Amino acid sequence: MSAAPGGHRLAEMTTVEAEHAVTASPLVLVPAGAFEQHGPGLPLATDLVRAESVVQRVADRLRGRAVIGPSLPVGVSPHHLAFAGTISLSTTVFRALVREYLDGLYRHGWRKVLVITGHGGNNAALTTIAQDLLADLPDLEFAWTPLTPLAGDIVAGMATSEVHGHSGEAETAQMLHLAPELVRDDRLAPGTTELSELDGLARLARRPGHPVTQVRYDRLSAGGVLGDPCTARPEDGAAIVAAIVDRVTDYAEEWLKV
Amino acid sequence: MSAAPGGHRLAEMTTVEAEHAVTASPLVLVPAGAFEQHGPGLPLATDLVRAESVVQRVADRLRGRAVIGPSLPVGVSPHHLAFAGTISLSTTVFRALVREYLDGLYRHGWRKVLVITGHGGNNAALTTIAQDLLADLPDLEFAWTPLTPLAGDIVAGMATSEVHGHSGEAETAQMLHLAPELVRDDRLAPGTTELSELDGLARLARRPGHPVTQVRYDRLSAGGVLGDPCTARPEDGAAIVAAIVDRVTDYAEEWLKV
Amino acid sequence: MSAAPGGHRLAEMTTVEAEHAVTASPLVLVPAGAFEQHGPGLPLATDLVRAESVVQRVADRLRGRAVIGPSLPVGVSPHHLAFAGTISLSTTVFRALVREYLDGLYRHGWRKVLVITGHGGNNAALTTIAQDLLADLPDLEFAWTPLTPLAGDIVAGMATSEVHGHSGEAETAQMLHLAPELVRDDRLAPGTTELSELDGLARLARRPGHPVTQVRYDRLSAGGVLGDPCTARPEDGAAIVAAIVDRVTDYAEEWLKV
Amino acid sequence: MSAAPGGHRLAEMTTVEAEHAVTASPLVLVPAGAFEQHGPGLPLATDLVRAESVVQRVADRLRGRAVIGPSLPVGVSPHHLAFAGTISLSTTVFRALVREYLDGLYRHGWRKVLVITGHGGNNAALTTIAQDLLADLPDLEFAWTPLTPLAGDIVAGMATSEVHGHSGEAETAQMLHLAPELVRDDRLAPGTTELSELDGLARLARRPGHPVTQVRYDRLSAGGVLGDPCTARPEDGAAIVAAIVDRVTDYAEEWLKV
Amino acid sequence: MSAAPGGHRLAEMTTVEAEHAVTASPLVLVPAGAFEQHGPGLPLATDLVRAESVVQRVADRLRGRAVIGPSLPVGVSPHHLAFAGTISLSTTVFRALVREYLDGLYRHGWRKVLVITGHGGNNAALTTIAQDLLADLPDLEFAWTPLTPLAGDIVAGMATSEVHGHSGEAETAQMLHLAPELVRDDRLAPGTTELSELDGLARLARRPGHPVTQVRYDRLSAGGVLGDPCTARPEDGAAIVAAIVDRVTDYAEEWLKV
Amino acid sequence: MSAAPGGHRLAEMTTVEAEHAVTASPLVLVPAGAFEQHGPGLPLATDLVRAESVVQRVADRLRGRAVIGPSLPVGVSPHHLAFAGTISLSTTVFRALVREYLDGLYRHGWRKVLVITGHGGNNAALTTIAQDLLADLPDLEFAWTPLTPLAGDIVAGMATSEVHGHSGEAETAQMLHLAPELVRDDRLAPGTTELSELDGLARLARRPGHPVTQVRYDRLSAGGVLGDPCTARPEDGAAIVAAIVDRVTDYAEEWLKV
Repeated sequence: MSAAPGGHRLAEMTTVEAEHAVTASPLVLVPAGAFEQHGPGLPLATDLVRAESVVQRVADRLRGRAVIGPSLPVGVSPHHLAFAGTISLSTTVFRALVREYLDGLYRHGWRKVLVITGHGGNNAALTTIAQDLLADLPDLEFAWTPLTPLAGDIVAGMATSEVHGHSGEAETAQMLHLAPELVRDDRLAPGTTELSELDGLARLARRPGHPVTQVRYDRLSAGGVLGDPCTARPEDGAAIVAAIVDRVTDYAEEWLKV
Repeated sequence: MSAAPGGHRLAEMTTVEAEHAVTASPLVLVPAGAFEQHGPGLPLATDLVRAESVVQRVADRLRGRAVIGPSLPVGVSPHHLAFAGTISLSTTVFRALVREYLDGLYRHGWRKVLVITGHGGNNAALTTIAQDLLADLPDLEFAWTPLTPLAGDIVAGMATSEVHGHSGEAETAQMLHLAPELVRDDRLAPGTTELSELDGLARLARRPGHPVTQVRYDRLSAGGVLGDPCTARPEDGAAIVAAIVDRVTDYAEEWLKV
Repeated sequence: MSAAPGGHRLAEMTTVEAEHAVTASPLVLVPAGAFEQHGPGLPLATDLVRAESVVQRVADRLRGRAVIGPSLPVGVSPHHLAFAGTISLSTTVFRALVREYLDGLYRHGWRKVLVITGHGGNNAALTTIAQDLLADLPDLEFAWTPLTPLAGDIVAGMATSEVHGHSGEAETAQMLHLAPELVRDDRLAPGTTELSELDGLARLARRPGHPVTQVRYDRLSAGGVLGDPCTARPEDGAAIVAAIVDRVTDYAEEWLKV
Repeated sequence: MSAAPGGHRLAEMTTVEAEHAVTASPLVLVPAGAFEQHGPGLPLATDLVRAESVVQRVADRLRGRAVIGPSLPVGVSPHHLAFAGTISLSTTVFRALVREYLDGLYRHGWRKVLVITGHGGNNAALTTIAQDLLADLPDLEFAWTPLTPLAGDIVAGMATSEVHGHSGEAETAQMLHLAPELVRDDRLAPGTTELSELDGLARLARRPGHPVTQVRYDRLSAGGVLGDPCTARPEDGAAIVAAIVDRVTDYAEEWLKV
Repeated sequence: MSAAPGGHRLAEMTTVEAEHAVTASPLVLVPAGAFEQHGPGLPLATDLVRAESVVQRVADRLRGRAVIGPSLPVGVSPHHLAFAGTISLSTTVFRALVREYLDGLYRHGWRKVLVITGHGGNNAALTTIAQDLLADLPDLEFAWTPLTPLAGDIVAGMATSEVHGHSGEAETAQMLHLAPELVRDDRLAPGTTELSELDGLARLARRPGHPVTQVRYDRLSAGGVLGDPCTARPEDGAAIVAAIVDRVTDYAEEWLKV
Repeated sequence: MSAAPGGHRLAEMTTVEAEHAVTASPLVLVPAGAFEQHGPGLPLATDLVRAESVVQRVADRLRGRAVIGPSLPVGVSPHHLAFAGTISLSTTVFRALVREYLDGLYRHGWRKVLVITGHGGNNAALTTIAQDLLADLPDLEFAWTPLTPLAGDIVAGMATSEVHGHSGEAETAQMLHLAPELVRDDRLAPGTTELSELDGLARLARRPGHPVTQVRYDRLSAGGVLGDPCTARPEDGAAIVAAIVDRVTDYAEEWLKV
């Protein structure tokens, strides 16, 4: 558990403070990450680092109306299992785990929970949790959000390769801004950057829109990287993070008024 | 089981024909629906009717290179449970069910399966299935697609109310084209058509982009309808269906070459 | 979903009609089939075709006091897995699926549900569902019935081979009556017709009474057929179906008075 | 664990003897009971007592070609839960339990297992186990049998009331023969003996043949008894048990030759 | 089920007596064993024999204030699976099974249950049951105890080898006292008696205190025995059993006053 | 994720470094905590803070022969659920979660994993995991250890109240040494310090040895504290931590030689 300057962490509160927080801080922010390969330059915890950083900034902006719940350091990453170090939860266990976090928060009286996930592989499981909650705990308001898609306009304005994404320009830029000490600059190297490098099924898997299929990352890129992280700049990362924090904070503000 | 003119239905084949189909028809199309309220004018099976209709058309277009697998007549519909007749599977059971369909098809030798779902509530569960397959059955190529989002451009060209969607203009149009005998024209009535009719949380739930939250349909609309189905026209439905069929067929054609 | 002439299908009703049906039609009939080999002459969906046909006829006879719920197109068929096209649910998933159908119907107010299964492989799982319901939902009245055993007297009066059953004289006769367009007459051929064709364990498995054991169908018959379907006559099928419909209707009538 | 005179009990063997038994005694007999009310005169363990007694006799008759496996003292008894002392397993747990017994026996090399159940409530769960084994462990030969139905002819020859069965004439007679010290003769009293005592649904539940429904025993009989146990005679019990033992032994003999 | 002289067995009671016992005998004692190798000299059921014997003695001492519930004849024994005859439940199934026993007892009104396990492999699973009960059934008082650890002082006073434990001096002594007819004296032989016989990992596994690791018994001892059972004396067994019975009875007495 | 000075964290490595670590660092240390009340003076994450601190020190001492795996920030804490902020996993979900961590590490080649848990409530679930692994992944060497019990001699030398334990002298001392900034000194207050303050059942639950029962902490102490944390001294905490680190390191050294 990091000793973060910002506070608002339930983990660092006593039960006395937690009891107060149930009413004073009706929103709980839960950071979700992954424990998966991010190429030769970024750490396995990249998604958690980004999620926790955003969560801390949002909590700071909300000035006590939100608390930070326990993190989810491991996510759903079967597509990265061919790369050393990746640990993946099945969607069944990930869902059961999140659900028990929610049950605990609910028991103490919280009714608004926002999971902020740095890892897109968690999105579908989070949606299925939301669906089951509609039947099981209908008065719990549950929301979730990914990170980078919130800053799509910023990313669109950056110079990126034809194929880009996982461990590419935008993600590396965020890490250069948020945790440069964890980036191995000397090892950053372009991954798959053009569709022509992909085989037929992999190309189908990268096609935007529907139908959708998925392939494992070792089929997409020998090094596990999509795009060229060498071109990433920390100032782009700062802009992405700022946009994400703004938008999540706006959403939370509106939600807290409901 | 309907006695469809088109053929290609595994259900109607004998085991002798099925054995032949494993190699001759390497793609299996699985129609997925829902058993849920569609307002006072459309039947509970609306999503299955649309999915089966599209599947039949796609199979016809593929001329023997695809077979139609068993349908999924009930889907994930917890948001509609307040309305009589809705039957919903938990995401856990829906996933287990689809997975056993896939295991059966895999056992006989099929390696390409496309689930075509008329119901968006199935999307997330289908994605979690795809994720778990990457770890468990990596040589099974699995894809899925919704229907109406494939024809977003057509729908954008139609006259729709500010709020529209479930049982609204586009869905009703499809049914007027595909199964007019199942539409109760006399009962069609506008549902929620403007954001101003929604309370705060419901408005958040309808906001495009992220974060996402979900609310039950009885909170969105007293009658379970979003948009004004009275304005739906069968010719728009025909255009939507044609676009969907074209795009799924194109995808399948490309996939079959892989 | 077939566009059946008879009506009474919940799937084809709107939620408004479904709400009315909860009180007007207190009995729900659920057709259960299988997706399994039926030899070279009958389709994989044979059991569902027969179940849906009987259900429709019973519903017609009950004139509005029963509705037809969603079908179960795939059943418990592990004994047929060696034959191409067979898809089987584990007994665990089949039970969970039926249970969620029942939970949905119960939630809306129905208290009488009758599952009519064209496939004997579903019988035991249906019984375990009934047992668990006694503890979990004691005020739900749940019943189930197979088809052909209801017409045992009719079958006994037919000319059958020493060994007969699956895809044999009685089942083929029903299909010749109900869905002749799905029968490949040209491929009908005798399967195992005499006990002397069976090995020791298979013979034990066919012994009536107890103890009971089960063997896979590829051990019972190279073609997956027990009996001689070539001798099947549609008029026998008509008699069998008529007897089944009579007896199920009588049962339902009596039940509706309780 | 009873110190039975007959031997053949795996429980009483050492691992050295068990290793020998895998080849010398290729059949394993597993007694299954219930822990459920049997009226004011018979003990909760009635079904286990009868099953273990039969198993011992069959093992004695098979002279070393079968061993007796661990008992299942609790079964599936939701219909008796209203009566004090009844403990019931859900069908899910009962099946998982039996399956792990089978997995253990299989691991050591046994390929023939016969479950002998004194309780009919276990029948369906045993069948579902058999079905799942066809897919999962196809070379395990698994059979099961109830007790009293094996002696239907003997029971038919006894004087019984119109309604009879659980804790009635035949079951009490068996206990008077097998374990008279556990029968409270002074408390034996007629239970429900005529159909006219039953309400409509209970009558449906007692109707032979299909459809089948189930009701809880407190609806069938205030005292939990069907029939008149006062008329039970130990000599009838002896005849029933002898017939059961004969028939199971015959079956086992034939099976051992396969 | 053994016909024990002591009485107090719920299994041997009728439902009428069980109903009385709920208030007269508020404590239920559940004997838990294992079905596992105990070397060449002791039977597979050794742990159940000891547990049932202790339970009977404790029940006798409590004179009607406790009843004996159904036994658990098979436990958690994965470490013994390499030895013929061992049947092991996964911790998941063992827990589900015990939990359904407890649910049944709870339903009838019992609020104090003590599981007495002759097998240490069940300890952890019993603890997890206790933990989950604190959340799920907080007014059920649940306790469990092993056997031999209760008599640690007696065992410490016996002559034992450096390595001793499973099927060794203390366990064999108990069996010589409780069930000498089940001990094969002629086959008793020393197992592993010195740490120097163990490889490095096995030695770590035998180290007292923490950290703890586990190895399979075939790695600890070729014959499955730790210690020298040849030196076991029935009088030591009697002392061990007496100490256990005293201590469990004292605990129960105190508990019954709460 | 804290930016720890010590290194050795898998989370901070790239996949390239992780691949190297599989052989260079064959031992994985997994910190396990709890998210539970620790009285008015200690934070909810107390157990994780202590576990991560010890893990870091042990990893430092092992100089590259061990890596630190992903943390388990939430544990099994049903006994603390009455206190605000406590989040507890059921033993089923905790086990499934740890198991998937282990499966991931195993897949990449690690064969030695040590879970170091700051929370005793995780002990039993960790043991059941170890048991199931003996059957499922027998070549994975898995060990676990609690913290404070490793320093029993140090704690015995401290001045403690008659009742002490959770959030008491020893635990507070560790936190004063490891993370004084997270301790609210001004709120530290004695909890339950004498057995006479406990009711009968709670006293039974605190009795050392067997049988064991558990009660919820709100029954043990109104403030959730056992002992008097006001007397805790950081130098005692330093001694406890040093002893723990020494002993775990010694164990690991020996294990790495196996």
